[in-house]
Amino acid sequence: MKFPDKLDRIIVKNNSLLCIGLDPEIEKLSPRKGFSFTGKGESLLEFSKWIIDKTAKLVCAYKPNIAFFEAYGLEGLDQLKKIFLYLQNEYPQIPIILDAKRTDIANSAKMYAKSMFDYWGADATTVYPHLGLDSIEPFLSYINNYTFLLVKTSNLDSVTFQNLKTEKGPYYLALAKEIKKWDRKNIGIFVGATYPKELKGIREIFPDKILLSAGVGAQGADLERSVKAGVDKQKKGIIFNASRSIIYAQDPAKAAKNLRDEINKYRSI
Amino acid sequence: MKFPDKLDRIIVKNNSLLCIGLDPEIEKLSPRKGFSFTGKGESLLEFSKWIIDKTAKLVCAYKPNIAFFEAYGLEGLDQLKKIFLYLQNEYPQIPIILDAKRTDIANSAKMYAKSMFDYWGADATTVYPHLGLDSIEPFLSYINNYTFLLVKTSNLDSVTFQNLKTEKGPYYLALAKEIKKWDRKNIGIFVGATYPKELKGIREIFPDKILLSAGVGAQGADLERSVKAGVDKQKKGIIFNASRSIIYAQDPAKAAKNLRDEINKYRSI
Repeated sequence: MKFPDKLDRIIVKNNSLLCIGLDPEIEKLSPRKGFSFTGKGESLLEFSKWIIDKTAKLVCAYKPNIAFFEAYGLEGLDQLKKIFLYLQNEYPQIPIILDAKRTDIANSAKMYAKSMFDYWGADATTVYPHLGLDSIEPFLSYINNYTFLLVKTSNLDSVTFQNLKTEKGPYYLALAKEIKKWDRKNIGIFVGATYPKELKGIREIFPDKILLSAGVGAQGADLERSVKAGVDKQKKGIIFNASRSIIYAQDPAKAAKNLRDEINKYRSI
Repeated sequence: MKFPDKLDRIIVKNNSLLCIGLDPEIEKLSPRKGFSFTGKGESLLEFSKWIIDKTAKLVCAYKPNIAFFEAYGLEGLDQLKKIFLYLQNEYPQIPIILDAKRTDIANSAKMYAKSMFDYWGADATTVYPHLGLDSIEPFLSYINNYTFLLVKTSNLDSVTFQNLKTEKGPYYLALAKEIKKWDRKNIGIFVGATYPKELKGIREIFPDKILLSAGVGAQGADLERSVKAGVDKQKKGIIFNASRSIIYAQDPAKAAKNLRDEINKYRSI
């Protein structure tokens, strides 16, 4: 099934635009009800499975950030592989966005695309647009999969370059306008929810595209503005990711339900 | 030892600015004298060791591109780990630049930096500058290691965004001028050798920084222009990477020697 169809079904089924970022840091884990953290063995895997089981009815996607597994080398990546297998077997209806931000010239990008979609079996991934279309084509050749291009990132210093004035407007808008010309179906756009004005501008350029946004939790984005700016005419078409604010909450299920419901509240206004 | 010192010693010892990119593709491998390719087992490892043994006296660095190992998942990365151990044990004087282009907001970038420098033990790595300084700090905190910021990539479509006119000149130059303000010792700059004019402009902005360049082999860059544009006042300070034109040559040692010598010829003019 194509990513947009898979996503649309689960958005409706779980009535949710919430994506949970699986970004476990060993230093931040502690024993919890139902998760017996020992600091040994496959903590990243066990913690992620615990989060998934608690939240699977509340999300429209999971987004592991591969950095948090690579930090522990092959052992960390082995656990990520098991997380993928767990999701694919137990929750096959929930899409997995592998947040890897792999970006390189075409000869190398084709190997990254092979890794993301053939090896990991991700439904979607993230890529920077700054190298131009030839570097992105290898990802787009996987027509059932989706590639989110990071047009405006959520961090403070993203303004330095991404808001630089160019002859075609601020740089992030120049990126967006050019990407629109490429007219590809399986491109999505990432905009940090910490920049609702930019999110609004991107939604105007892409009224129908699926957007991915992050920063509505720990990074402190204004949720109401972000939701209103980001949804399409059907009051969906955007995925809001939260990581730290959910996975380290005292009760992750409650935190996820609250955030899902708050997003839904602003969707309906 | 700090990366610039390690690099400087081997540049002098091997009289070389040549870096070989270890980017093996299984489909392009074939049995060679001293390399009994069967298509099974650890081909990426065996091939890379064969290339390394033939060229270790001719290079100033090796640059594995992690994409070519990730494409084969954990098995590919296990072979890359063994390549690192082989280089670190047998050729400890040769720096390893892990070309991984990992770039993310600080909370994730710190995990990527941990992976690059703690887990892999790379001497240097590559990172995109487009997210701004806060995303790069986690890499720079490893003060003995070096981070090459990709200011202008070697591909054809890099012009679309990287040469976009901004209020501070073409975007790649705006990046470079801002990076200069950061005034950090362990930042290097990557510029594709396929763009000698841009390489010249970058060298003018950074008269003393170590540059990394690629495209002098299979991508067909004009070697004479690139070398003259890229060297510093001591006729060094730049690393020229070639991958496909060396590793798939009938005689990789001969191809490496020829390219090293040709670079040296233009250095001395």
